[in-house]
Amino acid sequence: MDTLALKDAMASTAEALERVLNPILAVPDGQEARLYEAMRHSVYAGGKRLRPFLVCASADLFGVERQYSLRVAAALECVHCYSLIHDDLPAMDDDDMRRGKPTVHKAFDDATAILAGDALLTIAFEILANEITHPDPRVRCKLVEKLAKASGGQGMVGGQMIDLTASDHMLDERAIFRLQNMKTGALISFATEAGAVLASASKEAHASLQGYARDIGLAFQIADDLLDVEGNADEIGKAVGKDEDAGKATLIGIMGVERARQQAQLLADQAIEHLAPFDDKASLLRAVAHFAINRRT
Amino acid sequence: MDTLALKDAMASTAEALERVLNPILAVPDGQEARLYEAMRHSVYAGGKRLRPFLVCASADLFGVERQYSLRVAAALECVHCYSLIHDDLPAMDDDDMRRGKPTVHKAFDDATAILAGDALLTIAFEILANEITHPDPRVRCKLVEKLAKASGGQGMVGGQMIDLTASDHMLDERAIFRLQNMKTGALISFATEAGAVLASASKEAHASLQGYARDIGLAFQIADDLLDVEGNADEIGKAVGKDEDAGKATLIGIMGVERARQQAQLLADQAIEHLAPFDDKASLLRAVAHFAINRRT
Repeated sequence: MDTLALKDAMASTAEALERVLNPILAVPDGQEARLYEAMRHSVYAGGKRLRPFLVCASADLFGVERQYSLRVAAALECVHCYSLIHDDLPAMDDDDMRRGKPTVHKAFDDATAILAGDALLTIAFEILANEITHPDPRVRCKLVEKLAKASGGQGMVGGQMIDLTASDHMLDERAIFRLQNMKTGALISFATEAGAVLASASKEAHASLQGYARDIGLAFQIADDLLDVEGNADEIGKAVGKDEDAGKATLIGIMGVERARQQAQLLADQAIEHLAPFDDKASLLRAVAHFAINRRT
Repeated sequence: MDTLALKDAMASTAEALERVLNPILAVPDGQEARLYEAMRHSVYAGGKRLRPFLVCASADLFGVERQYSLRVAAALECVHCYSLIHDDLPAMDDDDMRRGKPTVHKAFDDATAILAGDALLTIAFEILANEITHPDPRVRCKLVEKLAKASGGQGMVGGQMIDLTASDHMLDERAIFRLQNMKTGALISFATEAGAVLASASKEAHASLQGYARDIGLAFQIADDLLDVEGNADEIGKAVGKDEDAGKATLIGIMGVERARQQAQLLADQAIEHLAPFDDKASLLRAVAHFAINRRT
Protein backbone atom coordinates (compact mmCIF):
# COMPACT_ATOMS: atom_id res chain seq x y z
CA MET A 1 0.00 0.00 0.00
CA ASP A 2 1.43 3.40 -0.92
CA THR A 3 1.22 6.59 1.11
CA LEU A 4 -1.40 8.08 -1.21
CA ALA A 5 -3.80 5.18 -0.68
CA LEU A 6 -3.36 5.51 3.09
CA LYS A 7 -4.02 9.25 2.93
CA ASP A 8 -7.17 8.64 0.89
CA ALA A 9 -8.38 6.04 3.37
CA MET A 10 -7.66 8.36 6.30
CA ALA A 11 -9.43 11.29 4.64
CA SER A 12 -12.53 9.24 3.93
CA THR A 13 -12.67 7.95 7.53
CA ALA A 14 -12.23 11.51 8.79
CA GLU A 15 -15.16 12.65 6.67
CA ALA A 16 -17.40 9.83 7.86
CA LEU A 17 -16.38 10.55 11.47
CA GLU A 18 -17.31 14.20 11.16
CA ARG A 19 -20.72 13.22 9.78
CA VAL A 20 -21.32 10.95 12.79
CA LEU A 21 -20.25 13.64 15.27
CA ASN A 22 -22.29 16.41 13.71
CA PRO A 23 -25.73 15.58 15.22
CA ILE A 24 -24.13 14.45 18.51
CA LEU A 25 -22.57 17.89 18.93
CA ALA A 26 -25.56 19.85 17.60
CA VAL A 27 -25.71 23.31 19.20
CA PRO A 28 -28.84 23.58 21.41
CA ASP A 29 -31.12 26.63 21.58
CA GLY A 30 -30.52 27.44 25.26
CA GLN A 31 -27.84 29.61 26.81
CA GLU A 32 -25.58 26.56 26.97
CA ALA A 33 -25.09 27.02 23.18
CA ARG A 34 -21.68 28.59 23.88
CA LEU A 35 -20.51 25.33 25.43
CA TYR A 36 -21.33 23.37 22.28
CA GLU A 37 -19.75 26.02 20.07
CA ALA A 38 -16.53 25.60 22.07
CA MET A 39 -16.74 21.80 21.78
CA ARG A 40 -17.20 22.09 18.01
CA HIS A 41 -14.36 24.61 17.75
CA SER A 42 -12.05 21.89 19.01
CA VAL A 43 -13.59 18.85 17.28
CA TYR A 44 -13.89 20.53 13.86
CA ALA A 45 -10.39 22.03 13.90
CA GLY A 46 -9.16 19.28 11.60
CA GLY A 47 -6.25 17.01 12.41
CA LYS A 48 -5.17 13.63 11.07
CA ARG A 49 -7.93 11.72 12.93
CA LEU A 50 -5.35 9.01 13.50
CA ARG A 51 -7.12 7.42 16.45
CA PRO A 52 -10.51 7.17 14.72
CA PHE A 53 -8.75 5.70 11.69
CA LEU A 54 -7.07 3.05 13.84
CA VAL A 55 -10.44 2.09 15.33
CA CYS A 56 -12.00 1.62 11.90
CA ALA A 57 -8.97 -0.12 10.38
CA SER A 58 -8.71 -2.58 13.27
CA ALA A 59 -12.47 -3.22 13.20
CA ASP A 60 -12.19 -3.93 9.46
CA LEU A 61 -9.85 -6.83 10.25
CA PHE A 62 -12.86 -8.64 11.70
CA GLY A 63 -15.51 -7.39 9.29
CA VAL A 64 -17.19 -5.22 11.95
CA GLU A 65 -19.87 -2.97 10.46
CA ARG A 66 -18.65 0.55 9.88
CA GLN A 67 -21.65 2.07 11.71
CA TYR A 68 -20.34 0.52 14.95
CA SER A 69 -16.66 1.33 14.54
CA LEU A 70 -17.47 4.95 13.65
CA ARG A 71 -19.38 5.38 16.92
CA VAL A 72 -16.36 4.15 18.90
CA ALA A 73 -14.14 6.37 16.77
CA ALA A 74 -16.39 9.33 17.58
CA ALA A 75 -16.20 8.66 21.33
CA LEU A 76 -12.43 8.34 21.17
CA GLU A 77 -12.04 11.56 19.17
CA CYS A 78 -14.12 13.39 21.81
CA VAL A 79 -11.70 12.17 24.48
CA HIS A 80 -8.71 13.18 22.35
CA CYS A 81 -10.13 16.68 21.76
CA TYR A 82 -10.99 17.13 25.45
CA SER A 83 -7.39 16.29 26.33
CA LEU A 84 -6.08 18.88 23.84
CA ILE A 85 -8.40 21.58 25.22
CA HIS A 86 -7.34 20.97 28.82
CA ASP A 87 -3.64 20.53 27.95
CA ASP A 88 -3.64 23.87 26.11
CA LEU A 89 -4.98 25.79 29.16
CA PRO A 90 -2.74 28.48 30.70
CA ALA A 91 -2.49 26.38 33.88
CA MET A 92 -1.14 23.46 31.82
CA ASP A 93 0.95 23.81 28.61
CA ASP A 94 -0.36 27.35 27.92
CA ASP A 95 -0.69 27.12 24.13
CA ASP A 96 -2.47 29.88 22.20
CA MET A 97 -2.58 28.21 18.80
CA ARG A 98 -3.32 24.71 17.56
CA ARG A 99 -3.46 23.68 13.91
CA GLY A 100 -3.23 27.33 12.90
CA LYS A 101 -6.30 28.36 14.89
CA PRO A 102 -6.67 29.90 18.35
CA THR A 103 -7.04 27.28 21.07
CA VAL A 104 -10.45 27.02 22.79
CA HIS A 105 -9.50 29.14 25.81
CA LYS A 106 -8.23 31.84 23.44
CA ALA A 107 -11.26 31.75 21.13
CA PHE A 108 -13.63 31.61 24.15
CA ASP A 109 -12.26 31.85 27.71
CA ASP A 110 -10.66 29.59 30.31
CA ALA A 111 -13.91 28.65 32.05
CA THR A 112 -15.61 27.73 28.79
CA ALA A 113 -12.57 25.68 27.78
CA ILE A 114 -12.60 23.74 31.05
CA LEU A 115 -16.33 23.03 30.68
CA ALA A 116 -16.07 22.16 26.97
CA GLY A 117 -13.37 19.62 27.80
CA ASP A 118 -15.48 18.20 30.62
CA ALA A 119 -18.51 17.89 28.34
CA LEU A 120 -16.53 16.18 25.57
CA LEU A 121 -15.12 13.64 28.02
CA THR A 122 -18.59 12.99 29.38
CA ILE A 123 -20.29 12.61 26.00
CA ALA A 124 -17.70 10.03 24.95
CA PHE A 125 -19.09 7.60 27.52
CA GLU A 126 -22.66 8.46 26.62
CA ILE A 127 -21.86 7.54 23.00
CA LEU A 128 -20.26 4.22 23.94
CA ALA A 129 -23.02 3.15 26.34
CA ASN A 130 -25.83 3.88 23.90
CA GLU A 131 -27.25 0.82 22.14
CA ILE A 132 -26.64 2.33 18.68
CA THR A 133 -22.93 1.67 19.26
CA HIS A 134 -23.29 -2.12 19.46
CA PRO A 135 -26.19 -4.52 20.01
CA ASP A 136 -24.36 -6.45 22.77
CA PRO A 137 -24.35 -4.54 26.10
CA ARG A 138 -21.33 -6.57 27.28
CA VAL A 139 -19.34 -5.15 24.38
CA ARG A 140 -20.48 -1.61 25.21
CA CYS A 141 -19.54 -2.01 28.89
CA LYS A 142 -16.12 -3.35 27.90
CA LEU A 143 -15.58 -0.34 25.63
CA VAL A 144 -16.58 2.08 28.41
CA GLU A 145 -14.30 0.38 30.90
CA LYS A 146 -11.33 0.21 28.54
CA LEU A 147 -11.69 3.81 27.38
CA ALA A 148 -11.96 4.99 30.99
CA LYS A 149 -8.83 3.03 31.98
CA ALA A 150 -6.90 4.31 28.96
CA SER A 151 -7.82 7.94 29.54
CA GLY A 152 -7.86 8.17 33.36
CA GLY A 153 -5.32 8.35 36.16
CA GLN A 154 -3.61 5.09 35.13
CA GLY A 155 -3.50 6.24 31.51
CA MET A 156 -3.59 9.58 29.72
CA VAL A 157 -4.37 11.86 32.68
CA GLY A 158 -1.74 10.13 34.82
CA GLY A 159 0.78 10.56 32.00
CA GLN A 160 0.01 14.25 31.73
CA MET A 161 0.46 14.59 35.52
CA ILE A 162 3.91 13.00 35.27
CA ASP A 163 4.80 15.12 32.23
CA LEU A 164 3.89 18.34 34.08
CA THR A 165 6.13 17.48 37.01
CA ALA A 166 8.86 15.87 34.88
CA SER A 167 10.66 19.11 34.09
CA ASP A 168 11.51 19.41 37.76
CA HIS A 169 13.39 16.13 37.97
CA MET A 170 15.08 14.42 35.06
CA LEU A 171 13.51 11.15 33.96
CA ASP A 172 15.54 8.17 32.76
CA GLU A 173 14.78 6.25 29.56
CA ARG A 174 12.51 3.75 31.27
CA ALA A 175 10.53 6.49 33.02
CA ILE A 176 10.06 8.36 29.74
CA PHE A 177 8.84 5.18 28.03
CA ARG A 178 6.34 4.73 30.85
CA LEU A 179 5.19 8.35 30.63
CA GLN A 180 4.69 8.13 26.85
CA ASN A 181 2.88 4.84 27.16
CA MET A 182 0.45 6.42 29.59
CA LYS A 183 0.11 9.84 27.99
CA THR A 184 -0.35 8.90 24.34
CA GLY A 185 0.13 5.14 24.07
CA ALA A 186 -2.92 4.18 26.12
CA LEU A 187 -5.43 5.89 23.79
CA ILE A 188 -3.69 4.45 20.70
CA SER A 189 -3.90 1.00 22.30
CA PHE A 190 -7.57 1.53 22.95
CA ALA A 191 -8.05 2.54 19.31
CA THR A 192 -6.53 -0.62 17.85
CA GLU A 193 -7.98 -2.94 20.47
CA ALA A 194 -11.47 -1.53 20.00
CA GLY A 195 -11.82 -3.49 16.76
CA ALA A 196 -11.18 -6.74 18.62
CA VAL A 197 -13.63 -5.75 21.36
CA LEU A 198 -16.37 -4.90 18.83
CA ALA A 199 -15.84 -8.31 17.20
CA SER A 200 -15.52 -10.22 20.48
CA ALA A 201 -12.30 -11.52 18.93
CA SER A 202 -9.93 -14.11 20.42
CA LYS A 203 -7.38 -13.37 23.12
CA GLU A 204 -4.65 -13.89 20.53
CA ALA A 205 -6.14 -11.22 18.27
CA HIS A 206 -6.34 -8.83 21.24
CA ALA A 207 -2.70 -9.54 22.11
CA SER A 208 -1.51 -8.97 18.52
CA LEU A 209 -3.27 -5.64 18.30
CA GLN A 210 -2.02 -4.60 21.75
CA GLY A 211 1.54 -5.37 20.64
CA TYR A 212 1.07 -3.44 17.42
CA ALA A 213 -0.40 -0.47 19.29
CA ARG A 214 2.40 -0.35 21.86
CA ASP A 215 5.02 -0.27 19.12
CA ILE A 216 3.40 2.29 16.82
CA GLY A 217 2.49 4.45 19.83
CA LEU A 218 6.15 4.75 20.78
CA ALA A 219 7.27 5.06 17.16
CA PHE A 220 4.88 7.99 16.69
CA GLN A 221 6.21 9.64 19.84
CA ILE A 222 9.84 9.30 18.84
CA ALA A 223 9.01 10.60 15.35
CA ASP A 224 7.27 13.57 17.00
CA ASP A 225 10.33 14.30 19.11
CA LEU A 226 12.57 14.01 16.02
CA LEU A 227 10.36 16.45 14.12
CA ASP A 228 10.59 18.84 17.06
CA VAL A 229 14.40 18.73 17.02
CA GLU A 230 14.98 18.56 13.25
CA GLY A 231 12.23 20.97 12.31
CA ASN A 232 13.89 23.60 14.41
CA ALA A 233 17.43 22.77 13.35
CA ASP A 234 16.47 23.72 9.78
CA GLU A 235 15.81 27.24 10.89
CA ILE A 236 18.97 29.22 11.47
CA GLY A 237 19.24 30.77 14.91
CA LYS A 238 16.90 28.26 16.51
CA ALA A 239 19.24 25.62 17.76
CA VAL A 240 16.95 23.91 20.22
CA GLY A 241 13.41 22.51 20.05
CA LYS A 242 10.47 23.57 22.18
CA ASP A 243 10.59 20.42 24.30
CA GLU A 244 14.16 21.20 25.28
CA ASP A 245 13.18 24.84 25.87
CA ALA A 246 10.43 23.68 28.18
CA GLY A 247 12.96 21.57 30.06
CA LYS A 248 11.06 18.43 29.15
CA ALA A 249 12.81 15.11 29.21
CA THR A 250 12.54 13.47 25.77
CA LEU A 251 13.88 10.22 24.40
CA ILE A 252 16.02 12.16 21.89
CA GLY A 253 17.73 13.98 24.72
CA ILE A 254 18.72 10.67 26.26
CA MET A 255 19.28 8.53 23.14
CA GLY A 256 20.59 11.09 20.70
CA VAL A 257 19.11 11.61 17.21
CA GLU A 258 20.80 8.65 15.53
CA ARG A 259 19.78 6.00 18.05
CA ALA A 260 16.29 7.47 18.26
CA ARG A 261 15.88 7.15 14.49
CA GLN A 262 17.01 3.52 14.61
CA GLN A 263 14.68 2.83 17.52
CA ALA A 264 11.68 4.27 15.63
CA GLN A 265 12.47 2.05 12.62
CA LEU A 266 12.83 -0.98 14.89
CA LEU A 267 9.48 -0.26 16.53
CA ALA A 268 7.73 0.14 13.17
CA ASP A 269 9.19 -3.20 11.98
CA GLN A 270 8.12 -4.87 15.22
CA ALA A 271 4.63 -3.39 14.93
CA ILE A 272 4.27 -4.89 11.46
CA GLU A 273 5.38 -8.31 12.71
CA HIS A 274 2.49 -8.30 15.20
CA LEU A 275 0.11 -8.06 12.22
CA ALA A 276 1.25 -11.37 10.65
CA PRO A 277 -1.88 -13.31 11.75
CA PHE A 278 -4.10 -10.92 9.79
CA ASP A 279 -2.38 -11.39 6.38
CA ASP A 280 -3.47 -9.01 3.63
CA LYS A 281 -6.36 -7.66 5.68
CA ALA A 282 -3.87 -5.61 7.72
CA SER A 283 -2.34 -3.65 4.85
CA LEU A 284 -3.78 -0.33 6.09
CA LEU A 285 -2.40 -0.90 9.59
CA ARG A 286 1.00 -1.77 8.05
CA ALA A 287 0.89 1.46 6.08
CA VAL A 288 0.17 3.35 9.33
CA ALA A 289 3.36 1.91 10.84
CA HIS A 290 5.40 3.19 7.90
CA PHE A 291 3.60 6.52 8.03
CA ALA A 292 4.31 6.83 11.77
CA ILE A 293 8.03 7.20 11.22
CA ASN A 294 8.18 8.76 7.74
CA ARG A 295 5.75 11.64 8.06
CA ARG A 296 6.84 15.25 7.84
CA THR A 297 4.14 16.79 10.07
CA MET B 1 -38.82 9.18 61.10
CA ASP B 2 -37.03 11.82 63.14
CA THR B 3 -34.02 13.89 62.10
CA LEU B 4 -31.67 11.92 64.32
CA ALA B 5 -32.55 8.61 62.64
CA LEU B 6 -31.99 10.19 59.23
CA LYS B 7 -28.63 11.58 60.34
CA ASP B 8 -27.60 8.14 61.61
CA ALA B 9 -28.61 6.51 58.34
CA MET B 10 -26.74 9.15 56.33
CA ALA B 11 -23.63 8.80 58.48
CA SER B 12 -23.57 5.04 58.09
CA THR B 13 -24.00 5.26 54.30
CA ALA B 14 -21.21 7.85 54.18
CA GLU B 15 -18.91 5.48 56.08
CA ALA B 16 -19.72 2.53 53.80
CA LEU B 17 -19.19 4.75 50.75
CA GLU B 18 -15.77 5.83 51.94
CA ARG B 19 -14.80 2.18 52.46
CA VAL B 20 -15.82 1.37 48.88
CA LEU B 21 -13.92 4.33 47.44
CA ASN B 22 -10.73 3.70 49.41
CA PRO B 23 -9.20 0.93 47.23
CA ILE B 24 -10.54 2.55 44.03
CA LEU B 25 -8.61 5.73 44.84
CA ALA B 26 -5.51 3.97 46.21
CA VAL B 27 -2.40 6.10 45.66
CA PRO B 28 -0.05 4.37 43.18
CA ASP B 29 3.74 4.19 43.54
CA GLY B 30 4.59 6.14 40.38
CA GLN B 31 5.01 9.86 39.91
CA GLU B 32 1.28 10.11 39.22
CA ALA B 33 0.80 9.69 43.01
CA ARG B 34 0.22 13.45 43.29
CA LEU B 35 -2.86 13.11 41.09
CA TYR B 36 -4.43 10.54 43.40
CA GLU B 37 -3.54 12.57 46.47
CA ALA B 38 -5.42 15.50 44.95
CA MET B 39 -8.40 13.26 44.11
CA ARG B 40 -8.47 11.99 47.70
CA HIS B 41 -8.11 15.52 49.09
CA SER B 42 -11.44 16.30 47.46
CA VAL B 43 -13.26 13.00 48.01
CA TYR B 44 -12.24 12.67 51.67
CA ALA B 45 -13.06 16.27 52.60
CA GLY B 46 -16.32 15.18 54.18
CA GLY B 47 -19.70 16.54 53.22
CA LYS B 48 -23.22 15.27 53.69
CA ARG B 49 -22.89 12.59 50.96
CA LEU B 50 -26.49 13.39 50.05
CA ARG B 51 -26.30 11.96 46.53
CA PRO B 52 -24.81 8.61 47.60
CA PHE B 53 -27.46 8.41 50.30
CA LEU B 54 -30.24 8.98 47.78
CA VAL B 55 -28.84 6.19 45.58
CA CYS B 56 -28.82 3.72 48.48
CA ALA B 57 -32.19 4.80 49.88
CA SER B 58 -33.87 4.54 46.48
CA ALA B 59 -32.25 1.17 45.81
CA ASP B 60 -33.54 -0.04 49.20
CA LEU B 61 -37.11 0.55 47.96
CA PHE B 62 -36.61 -2.41 45.64
CA GLY B 63 -34.42 -4.56 47.89
CA VAL B 64 -31.32 -4.03 45.72
CA GLU B 65 -28.18 -5.44 47.36
CA ARG B 66 -26.14 -2.75 49.07
CA GLN B 67 -22.92 -3.86 47.33
CA TYR B 68 -24.44 -2.70 44.03
CA SER B 69 -25.98 0.56 45.21
CA LEU B 70 -22.75 1.56 46.94
CA ARG B 71 -20.80 1.19 43.68
CA VAL B 72 -23.24 3.51 41.92
CA ALA B 73 -23.06 5.86 44.90
CA ALA B 74 -19.25 5.83 44.62
CA ALA B 75 -19.34 6.69 40.92
CA LEU B 76 -21.80 9.51 41.53
CA GLU B 77 -19.73 10.95 44.39
CA CYS B 78 -16.67 10.98 42.11
CA VAL B 79 -18.65 13.04 39.58
CA HIS B 80 -19.88 15.37 42.34
CA CYS B 81 -16.34 15.89 43.67
CA TYR B 82 -14.92 16.48 40.18
CA SER B 83 -17.54 19.19 39.65
CA LEU B 84 -16.59 20.88 42.93
CA ILE B 85 -12.87 20.83 42.03
CA HIS B 86 -13.43 22.38 38.60
CA ASP B 87 -16.05 24.88 39.86
CA ASP B 88 -13.63 26.11 42.54
CA LEU B 89 -10.86 26.89 40.00
CA PRO B 90 -9.76 30.53 39.62
CA ALA B 91 -11.11 30.52 36.05
CA MET B 92 -14.55 29.50 37.40
CA ASP B 93 -15.94 30.47 40.84
CA ASP B 94 -12.45 31.07 42.31
CA ASP B 95 -13.01 29.61 45.77
CA ASP B 96 -10.05 29.09 48.11
CA MET B 97 -11.82 27.16 50.85
CA ARG B 98 -14.39 24.40 50.92
CA ARG B 99 -15.69 22.73 54.08
CA GLY B 100 -13.03 24.55 56.10
CA LYS B 101 -10.14 23.15 54.05
CA PRO B 102 -8.18 24.64 51.15
CA THR B 103 -9.68 23.74 47.78
CA VAL B 104 -7.68 21.34 45.56
CA HIS B 105 -6.07 24.06 43.45
CA LYS B 106 -4.98 25.84 46.65
CA ALA B 107 -3.63 22.70 48.35
CA PHE B 108 -1.94 21.57 45.10
CA ASP B 109 -2.02 23.79 42.00
CA ASP B 110 -4.37 24.64 39.12
CA ALA B 111 -2.99 22.02 36.72
CA THR B 112 -3.25 19.26 39.30
CA ALA B 113 -6.80 20.35 40.15
CA ILE B 114 -7.86 20.23 36.49
CA LEU B 115 -6.35 16.76 36.10
CA ALA B 116 -7.74 15.46 39.40
CA GLY B 117 -11.21 16.53 38.29
CA ASP B 118 -10.72 14.89 34.90
CA ALA B 119 -9.55 11.66 36.53
CA LEU B 120 -12.49 11.57 38.98
CA LEU B 121 -14.99 12.07 36.14
CA THR B 122 -13.30 9.31 34.15
CA ILE B 123 -13.12 6.81 36.99
CA ALA B 124 -16.85 7.23 37.64
CA PHE B 125 -17.62 5.57 34.32
CA GLU B 126 -15.00 2.89 34.89
CA ILE B 127 -16.74 2.04 38.18
CA LEU B 128 -20.20 1.84 36.58
CA ALA B 129 -19.11 -0.26 33.59
CA ASN B 130 -17.26 -2.82 35.70
CA GLU B 131 -19.15 -6.05 36.29
CA ILE B 132 -18.81 -5.77 40.08
CA THR B 133 -21.39 -2.96 39.90
CA HIS B 134 -24.19 -5.18 38.58
CA PRO B 135 -24.37 -8.62 36.95
CA ASP B 136 -26.56 -7.37 34.07
CA PRO B 137 -24.55 -5.43 31.45
CA ARG B 138 -27.74 -3.73 30.21
CA VAL B 139 -28.17 -2.20 33.66
CA ARG B 140 -24.55 -1.03 33.70
CA CYS B 141 -24.88 0.56 30.24
CA LYS B 142 -28.06 2.32 31.30
CA LEU B 143 -26.30 3.69 34.38
CA VAL B 144 -23.36 4.94 32.30
CA GLU B 145 -25.66 6.58 29.79
CA LYS B 146 -27.86 8.21 32.41
CA LEU B 147 -24.95 9.49 34.48
CA ALA B 148 -23.30 10.92 31.36
CA LYS B 149 -26.52 12.66 30.32
CA ALA B 150 -27.06 14.05 33.84
CA SER B 151 -23.53 15.38 34.17
CA GLY B 152 -22.74 16.54 30.61
CA GLY B 153 -23.65 19.46 28.39
CA GLN B 154 -27.40 18.83 28.69
CA GLY B 155 -27.08 18.51 32.46
CA MET B 156 -24.63 19.67 35.10
CA VAL B 157 -21.90 21.09 32.82
CA GLY B 158 -24.49 22.89 30.68
CA GLY B 159 -26.02 24.35 33.86
CA GLN B 160 -22.64 25.59 35.04
CA MET B 161 -22.06 27.19 31.62
CA ILE B 162 -25.37 29.07 31.92
CA ASP B 163 -24.61 30.04 35.53
CA LEU B 164 -21.23 31.52 34.55
CA THR B 165 -22.77 33.69 31.87
CA ALA B 166 -25.96 34.44 33.83
CA SER B 167 -24.49 37.35 35.78
CA ASP B 168 -24.19 39.25 32.50
CA HIS B 169 -27.88 39.08 31.67
CA MET B 170 -30.65 38.72 34.20
CA LEU B 171 -32.55 35.44 34.08
CA ASP B 172 -36.28 35.17 34.67
CA GLU B 173 -37.87 32.67 37.05
CA ARG B 174 -38.32 30.02 34.37
CA ALA B 175 -34.72 30.34 33.20
CA ILE B 176 -33.44 30.02 36.77
CA PHE B 177 -35.55 26.89 37.30
CA ARG B 178 -34.06 25.43 34.12
CA LEU B 179 -30.52 26.37 35.20
CA GLN B 180 -30.98 24.77 38.64
CA ASN B 181 -32.54 21.67 37.14
CA MET B 182 -29.50 21.24 34.91
CA LYS B 183 -26.80 22.31 37.36
CA THR B 184 -27.83 20.41 40.47
CA GLY B 185 -31.18 18.75 39.74
CA ALA B 186 -29.88 16.37 37.07
CA LEU B 187 -27.43 14.60 39.40
CA ILE B 188 -30.03 14.37 42.18
CA SER B 189 -32.45 12.85 39.66
CA PHE B 190 -29.79 10.35 38.64
CA ALA B 191 -29.26 9.47 42.31
CA THR B 192 -32.89 8.62 43.03
CA GLU B 193 -33.54 6.98 39.67
CA ALA B 194 -30.45 4.78 39.98
CA GLY B 195 -32.30 2.55 42.46
CA ALA B 196 -35.02 1.89 39.88
CA VAL B 197 -32.40 1.20 37.19
CA LEU B 198 -30.51 -1.24 39.43
CA ALA B 199 -33.80 -3.08 40.09
CA SER B 200 -35.03 -2.89 36.48
CA ALA B 201 -38.17 -1.44 38.08
CA SER B 202 -41.38 -0.46 36.29
CA LYS B 203 -41.85 2.73 34.31
CA GLU B 204 -44.23 3.92 37.03
CA ALA B 205 -41.56 3.50 39.69
CA HIS B 206 -39.08 5.43 37.53
CA ALA B 207 -41.62 8.22 37.05
CA SER B 208 -42.39 8.47 40.78
CA LEU B 209 -38.72 8.73 41.66
CA GLN B 210 -38.09 11.26 38.89
CA GLY B 211 -40.92 13.39 40.24
CA TYR B 212 -39.59 13.11 43.77
CA ALA B 213 -36.08 14.04 42.61
CA ARG B 214 -37.21 17.06 40.63
CA ASP B 215 -39.05 18.44 43.65
CA ILE B 216 -36.41 17.84 46.30
CA GLY B 217 -33.70 19.09 43.92
CA LEU B 218 -35.41 22.46 43.65
CA ALA B 219 -36.35 22.48 47.34
CA PHE B 220 -32.68 21.97 48.25
CA GLN B 221 -31.64 24.77 45.93
CA ILE B 222 -34.15 27.25 47.33
CA ALA B 223 -33.13 26.27 50.87
CA ASP B 224 -29.49 26.89 49.87
CA ASP B 225 -30.35 30.32 48.54
CA LEU B 226 -32.32 31.10 51.73
CA LEU B 227 -29.35 30.04 53.89
CA ASP B 228 -27.11 32.30 51.81
CA VAL B 229 -29.40 35.29 52.41
CA GLU B 230 -30.39 34.61 56.01
CA GLY B 231 -27.00 33.35 57.16
CA ASN B 232 -25.48 36.64 56.18
CA ALA B 233 -28.32 38.78 57.52
CA ASP B 234 -27.48 37.49 61.00
CA GLU B 235 -24.08 39.10 60.82
CA ILE B 236 -24.24 42.84 61.28
CA GLY B 237 -22.64 44.81 58.50
CA LYS B 238 -23.11 42.09 55.93
CA ALA B 239 -26.41 42.98 54.43
CA VAL B 240 -26.18 40.92 51.25
CA GLY B 241 -25.35 37.28 50.48
CA LYS B 242 -22.50 36.10 48.30
CA ASP B 243 -24.79 35.18 45.41
CA GLU B 244 -26.05 38.74 45.26
CA ASP B 245 -22.48 40.01 45.58
CA ALA B 246 -21.51 37.85 42.62
CA GLY B 247 -24.37 39.33 40.65
CA LYS B 248 -25.97 35.91 40.33
CA ALA B 249 -29.65 35.60 39.59
CA THR B 250 -31.32 33.53 42.34
CA LEU B 251 -34.91 32.53 42.92
CA ILE B 252 -34.95 34.56 46.16
CA GLY B 253 -34.02 37.68 44.23
CA ILE B 254 -37.05 37.19 42.01
CA MET B 255 -39.55 35.64 44.46
CA GLY B 256 -38.61 37.35 47.69
CA VAL B 257 -37.83 35.44 50.92
CA GLU B 258 -41.43 34.79 51.95
CA ARG B 259 -42.63 33.30 48.67
CA ALA B 260 -39.41 31.30 48.34
CA ARG B 261 -39.98 29.74 51.77
CA GLN B 262 -43.53 28.80 50.81
CA GLN B 263 -42.33 27.39 47.49
CA ALA B 264 -39.73 25.20 49.23
CA GLN B 265 -42.42 23.83 51.58
CA LEU B 266 -44.74 23.17 48.64
CA LEU B 267 -41.99 21.32 46.78
CA ALA B 268 -41.17 19.16 49.82
CA ASP B 269 -44.87 18.26 50.21
CA GLN B 270 -45.11 17.43 46.52
CA ALA B 271 -41.95 15.31 46.69
CA ILE B 272 -43.46 13.27 49.50
CA GLU B 273 -46.67 12.72 47.51
CA HIS B 274 -44.64 11.10 44.73
CA LEU B 275 -43.52 8.48 47.25
CA ALA B 276 -47.05 7.21 47.99
CA PRO B 277 -46.66 3.99 45.92
CA PHE B 278 -43.76 2.89 48.13
CA ASP B 279 -45.63 3.06 51.48
CA ASP B 280 -43.48 2.66 54.59
CA LYS B 281 -40.44 1.62 52.61
CA ALA B 282 -39.92 5.27 51.61
CA SER B 283 -39.65 6.71 55.12
CA LEU B 284 -35.99 7.66 54.66
CA LEU B 285 -36.72 9.45 51.40
CA ARG B 286 -39.59 11.29 53.11
CA ALA B 287 -37.22 12.34 55.88
CA VAL B 288 -34.81 13.67 53.24
CA ALA B 289 -37.57 15.90 51.84
CA HIS B 290 -38.14 17.40 55.32
CA PHE B 291 -34.41 17.73 55.86
CA ALA B 292 -34.01 19.51 52.51
CA ILE B 293 -35.94 22.55 53.69
CA ASN B 294 -35.28 22.51 57.43
CA ARG B 295 -31.50 22.10 57.57
CA ARG B 296 -29.25 24.80 58.98
CA THR B 297 -26.13 24.06 56.88
